[in-house]
Amino acid sequence: MRNIKLTIEYDGRRYQGWQRLKDSDKSIQGKIEKVISIMTEEKIEIIGSGRTDAGAHAKGQVANFKTESTMTIDEMLEYLNRYLPNDIVVNDIEEVPERFHSRYNAKEKTYSYYVWNSTIPSVFNGMHSFHYFDELDMELMEEAAEKMIGTHDFLAFSALKKSKKSTERTIKEISITKEGNLIHFKFVGEGFLYNMVRILMGTLLQIGSGELSMNSIEQAFTSKKREDAGPTAPSHGLFLDEVVY
Amino acid sequence: MRNIKLTIEYDGRRYQGWQRLKDSDKSIQGKIEKVISIMTEEKIEIIGSGRTDAGAHAKGQVANFKTESTMTIDEMLEYLNRYLPNDIVVNDIEEVPERFHSRYNAKEKTYSYYVWNSTIPSVFNGMHSFHYFDELDMELMEEAAEKMIGTHDFLAFSALKKSKKSTERTIKEISITKEGNLIHFKFVGEGFLYNMVRILMGTLLQIGSGELSMNSIEQAFTSKKREDAGPTAPSHGLFLDEVVY
Repeated sequence: MRNIKLTIEYDGRRYQGWQRLKDSDKSIQGKIEKVISIMTEEKIEIIGSGRTDAGAHAKGQVANFKTESTMTIDEMLEYLNRYLPNDIVVNDIEEVPERFHSRYNAKEKTYSYYVWNSTIPSVFNGMHSFHYFDELDMELMEEAAEKMIGTHDFLAFSALKKSKKSTERTIKEISITKEGNLIHFKFVGEGFLYNMVRILMGTLLQIGSGELSMNSIEQAFTSKKREDAGPTAPSHGLFLDEVVY
Repeated sequence: MRNIKLTIEYDGRRYQGWQRLKDSDKSIQGKIEKVISIMTEEKIEIIGSGRTDAGAHAKGQVANFKTESTMTIDEMLEYLNRYLPNDIVVNDIEEVPERFHSRYNAKEKTYSYYVWNSTIPSVFNGMHSFHYFDELDMELMEEAAEKMIGTHDFLAFSALKKSKKSTERTIKEISITKEGNLIHFKFVGEGFLYNMVRILMGTLLQIGSGELSMNSIEQAFTSKKREDAGPTAPSHGLFLDEVVY
């Protein structure tokens, strides 16, 4: 069996997330599987590096699938980008060893979150960023980000009620850069819990606007209670940028 | 009468252009007039700096309107951005002398045109740029742009069949910059004929891909025949960036 690895870009606005649903046209996974199944004349299931939320985007989602097809990878790339909708594009295709698994072998992920910080909305940035009206203090957010970096139990910063598996995760890097009114938050880590980036974002934004105190972060790490962290920032500002293997 | 000047940003994809039509919801002008008329409780007509084509965008369209309203301009700005659709935003509002006229007083306009130059489409750039598959030679396009700069009769580079008014125009600047696969063309001039930027673009692209010869530009200036210039590039890559008064 050949094992094909795809690097995928998508605009999540029209979809209910990565994961295939009964109505396959509403998920990114389902849309891609449908096109690959027609292309290969096989019933194809693709394995993603992880789910992305309803409305969230990707610039570098990774998925793989097994096939007996004899098409070249260049032919596959051309076929996929011809028949996928405009809001899903395969940027790279590669033949990989049969043991390669997009989820199990993922070593590091990078997410970006964009915030449009102005009282005036933005037509061209508004579709893929969270419009935040209140003024944000960059230094306060940088100080808060420093406290999030490292290895912690992030249970309070996740949508999980409780978990049998470990909820300890390591954040390697959080960078915050501003260009005009657009603030770009970048998160690098080995793995993230369900909704973790969006709750870290909600916390950073409330600290930046003075609604939440700086020590709420340590408090949430200690209490492990969801209510000690900030709200869940909306999905349309979130991008899965890169998965490293 | 108060005279109010607006600087407006819009995504033209959903609209049949700037100019008001019978069905006012299909034009940018009509949409804005509707909201201002409700806001002021007057029948308002706005004057734009010029039309933009169906599907074309703006980052700095300028329009003005006369009103007896006693609202402050800050109140107006907030009202407009609350009730306009997400793809139209008023970025700036100013009270100007009564003689100010958005069209007659315009001294200079800047347009941008974006081209995504790759065999692979782009999800996030694709909505607002022209996807051009063939490889483009930057040096050839820069040489061609140099020939377009200056004062010429641009009749061949317009959708006008003939014109009683002068079709002589002056292009002050054309810059071409590339970042990754995205090429940004910037045009600065005192004024442009109908479809002129899009036909200049179609000509630059065909010269860049070797389909049209370099001397076709001079030939089109001399013959004044539309067929000697390149095709009309699609509107969804075009932005009206700025109007100078």
